[in-house]
Amino acid sequence: MTDLLGEKGANLAEMMKIGIPVPFGFTVSTEACTRFYENGGKLDPAVHAEICAKVAELENVMGKRLGDSENPLLVAVRGGAPKAMNGTLKTILNLGLNRDTVGALERMTGDRRFALRNMLDFLSSYSSIVLGIDEDRFLALNQEKRREAGAQDGDRLSLEDLQALEVSYRRLIVEETGSPFPEDPLEQLEEGMIAILKEWMAPDVIAYRKMHQIPDEPGIAVTVQAMVYGNAGSSSGTGIVLTRDPSSGQKRLYGEFLIDAKGSEMQKGIRSPLDLSIMQAAFPEAYERLKHICEILERQYRDLQYAEFTVQQGKLYILQTRRGRRTAQAAVKTAVDLVKEELIDRKTAVLRIDPVFIENLLAPRFDPEQEEEAVTIAQGIEASPGCACGRLVFSPEQALQLHQIGEPVILVQKETDADDLSGIYASSGIVTQRGGITSHASGAARAMGKACVTSVGDDIEIADDLNSMRAGEQTYYRGEYISINGFKGCVYEGQIRMIPPDLSGDFGKIMGWADEFRTMKVRTNANTPEEAQQGADFGAEGIGLCRSEHMFYQGSRLRQIQKMLLTQDPEEKQEAMEEIKRIQRSDFFDIFTIMEGLPVSVRLLDLPLQDFLPESDADLEDFAKEEGLSLFGVRQKADALRETNPMLGQRGCRLCIMHPELTVMQTEAIISAAIEAEEKMGRQVDLEIIIPLVISVHELNRVKDLVKKTADRIMKDAGHTIEYRIGTMLEVPRACMRADALAGSVDTFSFGTNDLTQMMYGLSRNDTAGLISEYMDQGIFPDDPFKTIDRDGVGKVMERAITLGRKVKPNLRLGVCGAQTGDQRSVEFFHELGMNYVSCSPFRVPVARLAAAQAAIRLGNGKEE
Amino acid sequence: MTDLLGEKGANLAEMMKIGIPVPFGFTVSTEACTRFYENGGKLDPAVHAEICAKVAELENVMGKRLGDSENPLLVAVRGGAPKAMNGTLKTILNLGLNRDTVGALERMTGDRRFALRNMLDFLSSYSSIVLGIDEDRFLALNQEKRREAGAQDGDRLSLEDLQALEVSYRRLIVEETGSPFPEDPLEQLEEGMIAILKEWMAPDVIAYRKMHQIPDEPGIAVTVQAMVYGNAGSSSGTGIVLTRDPSSGQKRLYGEFLIDAKGSEMQKGIRSPLDLSIMQAAFPEAYERLKHICEILERQYRDLQYAEFTVQQGKLYILQTRRGRRTAQAAVKTAVDLVKEELIDRKTAVLRIDPVFIENLLAPRFDPEQEEEAVTIAQGIEASPGCACGRLVFSPEQALQLHQIGEPVILVQKETDADDLSGIYASSGIVTQRGGITSHASGAARAMGKACVTSVGDDIEIADDLNSMRAGEQTYYRGEYISINGFKGCVYEGQIRMIPPDLSGDFGKIMGWADEFRTMKVRTNANTPEEAQQGADFGAEGIGLCRSEHMFYQGSRLRQIQKMLLTQDPEEKQEAMEEIKRIQRSDFFDIFTIMEGLPVSVRLLDLPLQDFLPESDADLEDFAKEEGLSLFGVRQKADALRETNPMLGQRGCRLCIMHPELTVMQTEAIISAAIEAEEKMGRQVDLEIIIPLVISVHELNRVKDLVKKTADRIMKDAGHTIEYRIGTMLEVPRACMRADALAGSVDTFSFGTNDLTQMMYGLSRNDTAGLISEYMDQGIFPDDPFKTIDRDGVGKVMERAITLGRKVKPNLRLGVCGAQTGDQRSVEFFHELGMNYVSCSPFRVPVARLAAAQAAIRLGNGKEE
Repeated sequence: MTDLLGEKGANLAEMMKIGIPVPFGFTVSTEACTRFYENGGKLDPAVHAEICAKVAELENVMGKRLGDSENPLLVAVRGGAPKAMNGTLKTILNLGLNRDTVGALERMTGDRRFALRNMLDFLSSYSSIVLGIDEDRFLALNQEKRREAGAQDGDRLSLEDLQALEVSYRRLIVEETGSPFPEDPLEQLEEGMIAILKEWMAPDVIAYRKMHQIPDEPGIAVTVQAMVYGNAGSSSGTGIVLTRDPSSGQKRLYGEFLIDAKGSEMQKGIRSPLDLSIMQAAFPEAYERLKHICEILERQYRDLQYAEFTVQQGKLYILQTRRGRRTAQAAVKTAVDLVKEELIDRKTAVLRIDPVFIENLLAPRFDPEQEEEAVTIAQGIEASPGCACGRLVFSPEQALQLHQIGEPVILVQKETDADDLSGIYASSGIVTQRGGITSHASGAARAMGKACVTSVGDDIEIADDLNSMRAGEQTYYRGEYISINGFKGCVYEGQIRMIPPDLSGDFGKIMGWADEFRTMKVRTNANTPEEAQQGADFGAEGIGLCRSEHMFYQGSRLRQIQKMLLTQDPEEKQEAMEEIKRIQRSDFFDIFTIMEGLPVSVRLLDLPLQDFLPESDADLEDFAKEEGLSLFGVRQKADALRETNPMLGQRGCRLCIMHPELTVMQTEAIISAAIEAEEKMGRQVDLEIIIPLVISVHELNRVKDLVKKTADRIMKDAGHTIEYRIGTMLEVPRACMRADALAGSVDTFSFGTNDLTQMMYGLSRNDTAGLISEYMDQGIFPDDPFKTIDRDGVGKVMERAITLGRKVKPNLRLGVCGAQTGDQRSVEFFHELGMNYVSCSPFRVPVARLAAAQAAIRLGNGKEE
Repeated sequence: MTDLLGEKGANLAEMMKIGIPVPFGFTVSTEACTRFYENGGKLDPAVHAEICAKVAELENVMGKRLGDSENPLLVAVRGGAPKAMNGTLKTILNLGLNRDTVGALERMTGDRRFALRNMLDFLSSYSSIVLGIDEDRFLALNQEKRREAGAQDGDRLSLEDLQALEVSYRRLIVEETGSPFPEDPLEQLEEGMIAILKEWMAPDVIAYRKMHQIPDEPGIAVTVQAMVYGNAGSSSGTGIVLTRDPSSGQKRLYGEFLIDAKGSEMQKGIRSPLDLSIMQAAFPEAYERLKHICEILERQYRDLQYAEFTVQQGKLYILQTRRGRRTAQAAVKTAVDLVKEELIDRKTAVLRIDPVFIENLLAPRFDPEQEEEAVTIAQGIEASPGCACGRLVFSPEQALQLHQIGEPVILVQKETDADDLSGIYASSGIVTQRGGITSHASGAARAMGKACVTSVGDDIEIADDLNSMRAGEQTYYRGEYISINGFKGCVYEGQIRMIPPDLSGDFGKIMGWADEFRTMKVRTNANTPEEAQQGADFGAEGIGLCRSEHMFYQGSRLRQIQKMLLTQDPEEKQEAMEEIKRIQRSDFFDIFTIMEGLPVSVRLLDLPLQDFLPESDADLEDFAKEEGLSLFGVRQKADALRETNPMLGQRGCRLCIMHPELTVMQTEAIISAAIEAEEKMGRQVDLEIIIPLVISVHELNRVKDLVKKTADRIMKDAGHTIEYRIGTMLEVPRACMRADALAGSVDTFSFGTNDLTQMMYGLSRNDTAGLISEYMDQGIFPDDPFKTIDRDGVGKVMERAITLGRKVKPNLRLGVCGAQTGDQRSVEFFHELGMNYVSCSPFRVPVARLAAAQAAIRLGNGKEE
């Protein structure tokens, strides 16, 4: 019904149906809006007739009549769209008031001031919405009168002043429109409705719709409801209620209340609202009724509900209800409790949890009270979730130094790159001036589960000597404590207390239910034994992407890689390679044993080699000096590796082919580690070797042959055969279009949706964070395609690849390991595509588990309860 | 018949049919080969029986018998594949010789030495091919004998020595095989045929097939032919003949002849062959017969033919014939002459010209004699066709300096980039140490029609002071003359004389015929009025791609761009923009008037802005100083523009959106130039504005709206309306998959196959020239995808885009403007796809015209003659 009646109207109709005491009323459906615009901005005669009939009905039910000088019907007229539009649509209250009926209102309430105030409010709001007079003009008259009267803040105007004000209001209306204020309530109603219908095409409402992708049709519905007054004296009041505690999820009424007040007063926060216990004391009967109604609402909507209510002279009215917002914790508890209360089933409970909440639950958080009081230093983009406190540092070296003596650090830099990884690793949180959610800092932080705020821009200015930074008037020195909130993109002064996450209890229950319904496996991207362990702890069913090169970023390892790449002496190169192999083998061994026989997909070297080089020329000089290498030779080697567009350069299987010795070294490390792990565990390692960045099947076969030959040799030498699969990354668009050719050579397609998106869009993640956010602001991109998979473009070639691949090999295994695997809508799409698994960063594993379960439930092809 | 009989066998059968005197023989078809391998390497009994029958027939025709001690039949046994395999397949001559028949041969020829030599040759070649004994072992025996005999070079062994040698040959055979040499000619024949069939699966033959993509089946055919001897005394001889002069195409016999010699002697070049006029004098009868036979061959094959012949004791035999190789000039003249002689029609004539030849014809060339004698300095990759001589320079500044005083220069650099363009423009030829055929130097040189050699690597070493280079022992100084041949990738010492191209006459005739049959339009890529003129001269039917940013690379223009990008003063920026607009407007005006109403597609700014920046930090400093700008500010601006992967960064329509002022400026320049041109010419400009690098229709519409708004304003101000179309580049893979969404907003899809290939492959043209050539060497890439369109990958998304686009807009105009438009196979594919036009660099226009005509003729959907 929401399409026809709007959200508010439909809710109202439903509440009336189940006997909730709402102010009686009716809704003119969205069809009237459509016809209004088809008619060139005129009310359809049929609609006009319908309104008259509905008004008559309302008059009968209420026993009041519009414009009746004894017992007048006063109404509220509200616009409502099928999708809530967060206060962009207008409401006219007290419609029906005029010179006559205002007297009746006074008589009914026995409160002249009340009647006059309502009249004034109606005059100004109607004039602003319907007659187009700026509301500030009325406000100015009001101020002027207060000045004349010498009223101080908090003083009320006298009745005479209010009367005089009404005169000036009416004079202003005549001046502006050339006619007196319309006294006929039916005219007021029709013009009011037209004005609300016209709002639908107001520039700011159109802008809001565009931004939230709400279609123009169906348009707006208009609800006409009898007025009730919370400000009709001391036996009246207004409030909001939630059926459960929205912070904890505990089952108890939660809300706020104001005695003798309009709803708008609470919204505007002019008066401090009271706890519901005050209401219980003041209006015990209304309170009991509210409690009962809350139970009805929960039974009806089977969820934590939010409601706005008014008590008019002791009688309770519910004005509207909707699903109540809640914290992650409350969401989980409520879902579990509602299952216990047999209001919802487990599928519904699983569907109720927004996967984004899960991420919130998993990351350590600040004590909200302390955070509120903290001084904000800078505001940026929420690049990686989590909260962290630590000592301020401005370089990886400073970070390592403090980290080594056990101090938590927050690394603040202009931006980060591969050279900074050991520094990032040593830090509890990262702040950068540049880059967005897909910048290097953000990616690295997410992968390592560190909080990160990027794009703080000019909020801070780092001193050249890297010993302090300025933020506004304030200077913060290296070593001082700061705190960052990666959920909000905030950087604070000092230390804020942390609250640990609770992963057992209700959370565990929900995740368990999710796993029951889920059909798609969830693995983790893990590059180190630590990450593998984290992933496993979060319930990963294997490793979908182990980027072997990421192992190199720790401590002295990078130095070995650099030696291998930059020395011109074959023996030294060989030594460095042996050392790297030893390190890799040991890491792989740990990873295999941690995963205890769950699948592990190891990707061969993918990064451009230049990413491993010392960054500046000075660094290169230092390196040559320290390693005792010829600077000329080192420079020559480094120059040969540098590329103008490294993302499109010599990386992935191109490296495997151009530098077969690297392929051999890596295969030796992987296979011998697997042999060792099998021997130690006494069980099989489920190993897959993934060949990245493949363009053509010839490339793939070339590398596959070398891997097989090497593996055969190692296994023969060890006298131990292990089983392993070969997979390929589908990340180059051409590979997707040639998937039929590739499928014959592999067991698995692993879609690398980061690179695939990058190449499908011709858009580098590193260089265009600003562009992407600008495009989203302008509505060019509905989403960041690196965060939410682009179904229409990238998705189309993925579909094509799957169709082509499965035609050749029906049991082809399919997985995804891009950053989108942590995103709900993307996971749903991957489920639809029939992926066997998605693989995401450890901290996203529960998110993906939940999202995959929801997709399975929604599409009705999940496992049965 | 070639599939069944192989190329040689089929030719032989055909020659026999038309009465050419060939040594009589028969061919065992490729079916026998297939069955041989199906039988696990044994001759099929049916094949055996067939051979016996055919031998009997041959014996009857020749009146000789295999093994007959009086009149023995001696045969040559040759393998032949359906496709010529350039000497990889073996031949056994003199099969049938044994202790008996060698005497008969002596008696028949009266030449004991001749008989003995043939016996020795047969023993060694049969042993090597059939018995698997290394031929060098026989050569060693021969050498030993010559040493024993004290024979000097040129001395002949005595008859006794030859006899002794036969004894040692036979002894070696017994030692190696355990059996004496097979005396039975039928056994020799069968074993010989089996050996030749086995050759088909020899590793080097398999490798050859792989490299040339020749399938395994049908296999090899074996031709058995009676031996004829050119070395049977002074009335015998051997030679080759071409039916026309292969250099000029003139109709006269052309060839070489040796008296008393075997064909292999001529091939080995041991003796200097004689002109055919000597043959005419020595063997007048055989010569006349040869002349007559050449006419028959031309009538039969309707083309310039090559033939090998032998005169045995005065009697002429044709051994084989094939299409004769010829120069570009000869190809054109022959094709035109054959039409005049009514041997072929004009379609066939057009098909006869290899489009690559056209390019050869158009570029100035070196005098071949002088080139042969020149000293080679370095050898690299043929990056841009053409020959050039000039003074050696090592920097753009040096190039400009000499160019300004009218001296031709050859620019030698490590590599080039956008900053060097003015230097390249000033040079006659470019040599770089790095980069391949798709490097910056190569692309720029091709676009400007300059000769270019890249990848000379370590052949040269440029001195740090840029005043000389070393090549081996030699040093070449700045200002010295060098010459480069861009067809061959050669760099020579000194000056070599040039021969101008002849574009009229026969060339003009062929191109005219091609245009008659062609259906796809050919336009040119032209960025300047000069290039537009060149393209028009070469017959371009419009400009398919005018890259407005390329206009900026001349002289002081770049400086204006840099000022616009780097100044922080809005007024200065505005001034620079006005100046750029003025320059662009003037260039566009010239281009529109040169094209005289032919279509002109102008692409909006596409390059990353950083490409326009001063390269080094020092350059940046100089720039700031010269322009009086703050170095700090300039650096800040420059830093903001630099990107890690500029090809995937802020370029194309992304710039148009992020910097709308650039879009407005360009549109103003284009539209006002078009108005001016229309007013001057008194005819319409056929203008299209192309929006590049589009990802999504929202992007496209945003830019389109801005272009339209600006154009409307300019036209209104001028009081002159022009018609123009809007097109978009399809170069981002996503755009192809979303072509249905895009088609509604544009008139034209222009496929930018350079970027499209780059993104489909995830492979940057700039960084991977070495990789691509390595991949081609290894057989991973069949072709360079930047040279020949990749049908299977890139082609598939193009097809998809066309299908989607035409579904929405059936009359959508389609064009291609990547580098592949100058390539024959690519043009054929574009024709198949139904493109309306291709657009290539000016010098490639005739190539594309011809290739498009050939595609139309081959696919049978060209215009009728």
